Amino acid sequence: MEQVKKHESNVRGYSRSFPVTFTSANGAVIHDTDHKQYIDFLAGAGALNYGHNNPFFKMKLMDYIDKNGVTHGLDLSTEAKEHFINIFNKYILEPRELKYKMQFTGPTGTNTVEAAIKLAQIVTGRTNIITFTNGYHGHSKGALRLTANAHYRKGLENELNQFTTFIPYYGFLDGDFDSADYLDKILSDSGSGTDIPAAIILETIQGEGGVNIAPKEWLQKLRRITEKHDILMIVDDIQVGCGRTGNFFSFEDAGIYPDMVTLSKSLSGYGLPMSLLLIKPEIDDWKPGQHTGTFRGNNLAFVTAAEAIIKYWKDDEFTKETLAKSSKLLRILKQIGEDHKEIITDVRGKGLIAAVECADAETASSITAEAFDNGLIIETCGSNGNIIKFLPPLNIHDNYLNEGIKIFEQAVQSINKVELV
Amino acid sequence: MEQVKKHESNVRGYSRSFPVTFTSANGAVIHDTDHKQYIDFLAGAGALNYGHNNPFFKMKLMDYIDKNGVTHGLDLSTEAKEHFINIFNKYILEPRELKYKMQFTGPTGTNTVEAAIKLAQIVTGRTNIITFTNGYHGHSKGALRLTANAHYRKGLENELNQFTTFIPYYGFLDGDFDSADYLDKILSDSGSGTDIPAAIILETIQGEGGVNIAPKEWLQKLRRITEKHDILMIVDDIQVGCGRTGNFFSFEDAGIYPDMVTLSKSLSGYGLPMSLLLIKPEIDDWKPGQHTGTFRGNNLAFVTAAEAIIKYWKDDEFTKETLAKSSKLLRILKQIGEDHKEIITDVRGKGLIAAVECADAETASSITAEAFDNGLIIETCGSNGNIIKFLPPLNIHDNYLNEGIKIFEQAVQSINKVELV
Amino acid sequence: MEQVKKHESNVRGYSRSFPVTFTSANGAVIHDTDHKQYIDFLAGAGALNYGHNNPFFKMKLMDYIDKNGVTHGLDLSTEAKEHFINIFNKYILEPRELKYKMQFTGPTGTNTVEAAIKLAQIVTGRTNIITFTNGYHGHSKGALRLTANAHYRKGLENELNQFTTFIPYYGFLDGDFDSADYLDKILSDSGSGTDIPAAIILETIQGEGGVNIAPKEWLQKLRRITEKHDILMIVDDIQVGCGRTGNFFSFEDAGIYPDMVTLSKSLSGYGLPMSLLLIKPEIDDWKPGQHTGTFRGNNLAFVTAAEAIIKYWKDDEFTKETLAKSSKLLRILKQIGEDHKEIITDVRGKGLIAAVECADAETASSITAEAFDNGLIIETCGSNGNIIKFLPPLNIHDNYLNEGIKIFEQAVQSINKVELV
Amino acid sequence: MEQVKKHESNVRGYSRSFPVTFTSANGAVIHDTDHKQYIDFLAGAGALNYGHNNPFFKMKLMDYIDKNGVTHGLDLSTEAKEHFINIFNKYILEPRELKYKMQFTGPTGTNTVEAAIKLAQIVTGRTNIITFTNGYHGHSKGALRLTANAHYRKGLENELNQFTTFIPYYGFLDGDFDSADYLDKILSDSGSGTDIPAAIILETIQGEGGVNIAPKEWLQKLRRITEKHDILMIVDDIQVGCGRTGNFFSFEDAGIYPDMVTLSKSLSGYGLPMSLLLIKPEIDDWKPGQHTGTFRGNNLAFVTAAEAIIKYWKDDEFTKETLAKSSKLLRILKQIGEDHKEIITDVRGKGLIAAVECADAETASSITAEAFDNGLIIETCGSNGNIIKFLPPLNIHDNYLNEGIKIFEQAVQSINKVELV
Repeated sequence: MEQVKKHESNVRGYSRSFPVTFTSANGAVIHDTDHKQYIDFLAGAGALNYGHNNPFFKMKLMDYIDKNGVTHGLDLSTEAKEHFINIFNKYILEPRELKYKMQFTGPTGTNTVEAAIKLAQIVTGRTNIITFTNGYHGHSKGALRLTANAHYRKGLENELNQFTTFIPYYGFLDGDFDSADYLDKILSDSGSGTDIPAAIILETIQGEGGVNIAPKEWLQKLRRITEKHDILMIVDDIQVGCGRTGNFFSFEDAGIYPDMVTLSKSLSGYGLPMSLLLIKPEIDDWKPGQHTGTFRGNNLAFVTAAEAIIKYWKDDEFTKETLAKSSKLLRILKQIGEDHKEIITDVRGKGLIAAVECADAETASSITAEAFDNGLIIETCGSNGNIIKFLPPLNIHDNYLNEGIKIFEQAVQSINKVELV
Repeated sequence: MEQVKKHESNVRGYSRSFPVTFTSANGAVIHDTDHKQYIDFLAGAGALNYGHNNPFFKMKLMDYIDKNGVTHGLDLSTEAKEHFINIFNKYILEPRELKYKMQFTGPTGTNTVEAAIKLAQIVTGRTNIITFTNGYHGHSKGALRLTANAHYRKGLENELNQFTTFIPYYGFLDGDFDSADYLDKILSDSGSGTDIPAAIILETIQGEGGVNIAPKEWLQKLRRITEKHDILMIVDDIQVGCGRTGNFFSFEDAGIYPDMVTLSKSLSGYGLPMSLLLIKPEIDDWKPGQHTGTFRGNNLAFVTAAEAIIKYWKDDEFTKETLAKSSKLLRILKQIGEDHKEIITDVRGKGLIAAVECADAETASSITAEAFDNGLIIETCGSNGNIIKFLPPLNIHDNYLNEGIKIFEQAVQSINKVELV
Repeated sequence: MEQVKKHESNVRGYSRSFPVTFTSANGAVIHDTDHKQYIDFLAGAGALNYGHNNPFFKMKLMDYIDKNGVTHGLDLSTEAKEHFINIFNKYILEPRELKYKMQFTGPTGTNTVEAAIKLAQIVTGRTNIITFTNGYHGHSKGALRLTANAHYRKGLENELNQFTTFIPYYGFLDGDFDSADYLDKILSDSGSGTDIPAAIILETIQGEGGVNIAPKEWLQKLRRITEKHDILMIVDDIQVGCGRTGNFFSFEDAGIYPDMVTLSKSLSGYGLPMSLLLIKPEIDDWKPGQHTGTFRGNNLAFVTAAEAIIKYWKDDEFTKETLAKSSKLLRILKQIGEDHKEIITDVRGKGLIAAVECADAETASSITAEAFDNGLIIETCGSNGNIIKFLPPLNIHDNYLNEGIKIFEQAVQSINKVELV
Repeated sequence: MEQVKKHESNVRGYSRSFPVTFTSANGAVIHDTDHKQYIDFLAGAGALNYGHNNPFFKMKLMDYIDKNGVTHGLDLSTEAKEHFINIFNKYILEPRELKYKMQFTGPTGTNTVEAAIKLAQIVTGRTNIITFTNGYHGHSKGALRLTANAHYRKGLENELNQFTTFIPYYGFLDGDFDSADYLDKILSDSGSGTDIPAAIILETIQGEGGVNIAPKEWLQKLRRITEKHDILMIVDDIQVGCGRTGNFFSFEDAGIYPDMVTLSKSLSGYGLPMSLLLIKPEIDDWKPGQHTGTFRGNNLAFVTAAEAIIKYWKDDEFTKETLAKSSKLLRILKQIGEDHKEIITDVRGKGLIAAVECADAETASSITAEAFDNGLIIETCGSNGNIIKFLPPLNIHDNYLNEGIKIFEQAVQSINKVELV
């Protein structure tokens, strides 16, 4: 850690919360330089739905490197890329009757968001984008504008506050306020001051924003409203896509068909940088090369990504397993919430993303720090930092899931005891 | 290619110029599905200064994967990351007496530019950024604003045209106009209308913009002017850093010390997505986690990047070799230019980036298409597309360099013959 | 009208609704070239609170011109200006214990709004401004951004949508939604995405926006919220100030003390272009000459404005008279509303601004057209155009008030009869 | 002055340079409360081309008021307005074969500029506007963006720097740089980074910016370039129109036909707030009422404006007189410049706008202060404040012109003597 502390910019984040140096990892487990083992409920901030260094993909990856498969990421056509396109189309898009074109943007979520926004603006000729309170879409300027958390906007507010309208997310306001109705109202009323936007960008569950879960009826209503007003719907599925909620896409159970979908994080299956924008063919108005970049085809990621789909998404077995684990996790967490009402104010989740909301940020960070000492990596989220977010690998073995929950419960008990005294 | 044509977005670019599917690659050579071999003077658009799948790095990479080294890219501290930081500091920064802090942004060039601009704005409290005609800095909104080429701005102009002042790059205007003096004038004169900017962002050689080469005296003058007016200087060394011009940094021979430097492309040494922003410690005003992202530490890239530095940058041998190859390449290209004045209007270069400027875009693309048929991959650049850009791997073997040049010359002859008839 | 139709831009507005040429005017009455007389319930869109060509001011105005008083409007010190400053301070500010500094901006409302916004931004270093649905603040860019009506933004949306957050005005949403609480919430919650603004700009009654009347408790709550979050409150009193609601300032009965107040329209008392920005001394951070203009001191307007204050605002007599007329007007209009529920959906008002809300825009414009034929000038407003707005001169003689109402009622009857058939 | 100092905002400007209270004025002469007489070479910053309180217009004005002509300024059709439209068309537009439509904006120059810019953006669908170094167009946000002087932009730079490209005005740069060619270059070269603008806005002589005079060949070249690139040309003739350069429009001798022309200042002839935008019929794309305002038809100004045109513009007599005075003024000023080379660096002018450029701002302000003490009102301009600007009434009697020049020369002598010592 000395080199990191000395030479890395102040901007470094996770290495402050988890101040050790990690060496190797496998499935749900990661080790540090002192050979201490941690169960990983952070999972690369959602980038490891299939666990660390998944052995099914690892061999394919090493083979590809060994045989000198093309590595570099220019958007040339390669065998690895064509294979991925083929597999993604065959096992993901076709069975779901989704006819998207695929855009390989720079291999980060934020770049995919940038591409989606730009395309929406080009297609519609409008600049405004509707986004939501507590929305999180990345840190490059086009995406940061859409990101609500004031910490990220600090010092840049004077420029960011443009071409964006923030709408209360589901549940942001108390009472019977329905923000979908509100959106419909301001789009319908020519006195609202809200210019008709190019698109709305939407997380079905706000991951970074505090695990806020939108019900499917609300998503359906939003889809109807966007169609009514002829504005595009972009679903940012970077954190909760790729199976996190059970289905491959988080919006499947709502039965909606977004105009664009952003994917990243767990897409490569191996934690490698990769991103994908799905675009309805009728709005694929890009000029060749108009959104470009050096790493638009991370071939190593294509190799593992294709393998991940073949391994886990040929049928609905994996979805069932995830939902079974989800039931268990949520049941236990709710019991923990019941047992510690003094410090836990809410427990919620869907699939294998879950939140334990604490009374305040201090309590939450005390719990996660205690858990870390005892071998569990888990982070807080939300604009207040009072929410503990569970993101275990989807294929986590039951033993590790149980043990992780146990460490968490003990940490809660330990902190609650202190508070009760 | 069928899958690509059918399912990939219209935005795909290089796969139109080079319409084959590539399979494997090694050093300066890449193969397609028909086992045809190509000499690669595109080199991942500058991402492969050490060639495809460099064998020195490959073994380390496979070892790391094999032993389950941490793969995923969250900004946790890992052995691979600490090793890279250590090596980069020891062999790159310390010998050059550069005291930069390192920020690992999302692993793309554009993300590094975004981070640099944001930090400059936060530090100075100003929004305006000075950039240059034909400048190229990426495609996310904050970077796209700074990018001159109208093709990339198409359909987004109404929003992009803000917080940015374009200044003529060295040589953009004919005559004795000195754009450094012009910059000084508009910053000094309170009637210029140009608000004092946070920073200028500068390529020492404009790669995408047409291989426009700024002399070191001009760079030095710009450095003096930025200091005089207390504005930050960001050097975007994404394309011409990492040894492309001979020295590791392209600005070394000018003896200037920028406030921030962006690196990417060849940094990982293996074509893997990786980026780095270098920041003078006194302006490292980031709040922890303020610019974040899932793939801020591509560990596989750290492994190969450290190895690349150890292999090539322990001493100045590699620089000497590059400069020797540069002399040869430029000498021959100039002769070709002399021999084909009918269609070649200029030849220029520095280190191993070189340009053959053709009379028009059609001639240039005819030459590169002919060269591709004969086994050479080389691209055009510049806002008019009439410039052929040479970016061979720096460690290219003489045989391949010679053969590549020969194929190019034959293509020129072939096209010129047609034109002369 | 022929010259107007032929040579004036398409932008002309009122001359389409009232397609005659007017010649002379006196009090509440205006005449056209055919010697037809109209009772004027439009009153210069609120610029004639003291009637047309008020005889008390007229003599002073002619005297001033006759003796060659300085006419031109540069912000030099003149006798007329000093007199106005003295009188305004003595009869308006001091009795109300308001310690404002006076800024004479260009003599239009929009210019005063521009100045207020600029000063708020300079003082706070922030760019964002909170404004309200159906807010109306003018047509220059800085003010137009804050103006909600889509008709005015048409074709400019792509640029206007910045540095502005629209909040629902009182009553914009149904149900128990309180937009003051909403404002507090988004300013308090760091996940709201709303950057802390420089100021809110507020009409206590939205005149152009449809005669939407905010209760004083809501205004008081807004004042507490702005103070809590350290943001400035600008009251735009251009239409409903200068006595329109009874008191000189429309916010007097709420007992709030805004940081800035804009005045224009009836300020000169004679329909002459004049504007005034009131500024709390502690935020008067202007540099000399920083907001300038050729007509910043319309001396003819100073003459009549001072006279108007002396005549009507020495005591509270005028306020009482206005409130008495108000009671009468509202009582009769409500009766008319009761009698014609088929086409009138609401009647509301405060002081001598009142609204008769019709079922639709067609009904409203049919009524006003019929009224015009019968000698009453009255206009529609609101983003839907379905609201008939009453703005008679405050000093209108009872005979004319009665007659005007009678013409209106007959027009309603005539239209309702048609509809009922 | 006490009331002014105590109660007026810090923003007040001219009353600091000329710290007396003025009472009455007549022709070229203005008086203060101490009965001191001043010759006025400031002339309302160009608003008094026909002198103070011109007796030919005064009677008409008093008659109109006396007979209760409509005073208030809503854009209704009035006799006074129709008369003006008729007269302006007959004596100004028709003889010059200019087919403009007339838009009456708010009665200030800045509002007219705002309208012109908005219309250019609506018509072209583009946001960018080309403006010039040292350009001055007003203080509302849309106009301020186009205004170069840093003093006016102070504290607002972070927002203003958008949708605007500043180009060097004629003569801004030394050497053989031609900024018209530069404009052509950046509009032609797709790598310039300058998005094709909606319009350029141009002063033929920069008044506030330092009396910078563009030759007619340069104006003609700009007109060709704007036509070539299909961008609109707006001439801002607010300060140097209405006869200031001899002809009614300042661009007449260049023989160009702008797409839009802004007029204000001397338009009313009497120093009353009035503005006018001239629009080529084919781009008059306004929707009715889209740019509106309370004071869009200052009837008192219509009365005097029509009279001014009848009196001075029926034939070319007035132009000849102005040019004769111009010759005399410039000849004498150049002699003064010759005689005082120690402190005067340039003398220039056209028509009756002239500049004496001093070595520095202190010298210039010492001269104008000394002149004021001796009974001459004259101001400095330019971003450095070192330029003394002569704007006498066009109809100034020779005696006053001579006397004013004499006072000026004595002031120069007095200051130069001090400097020489």
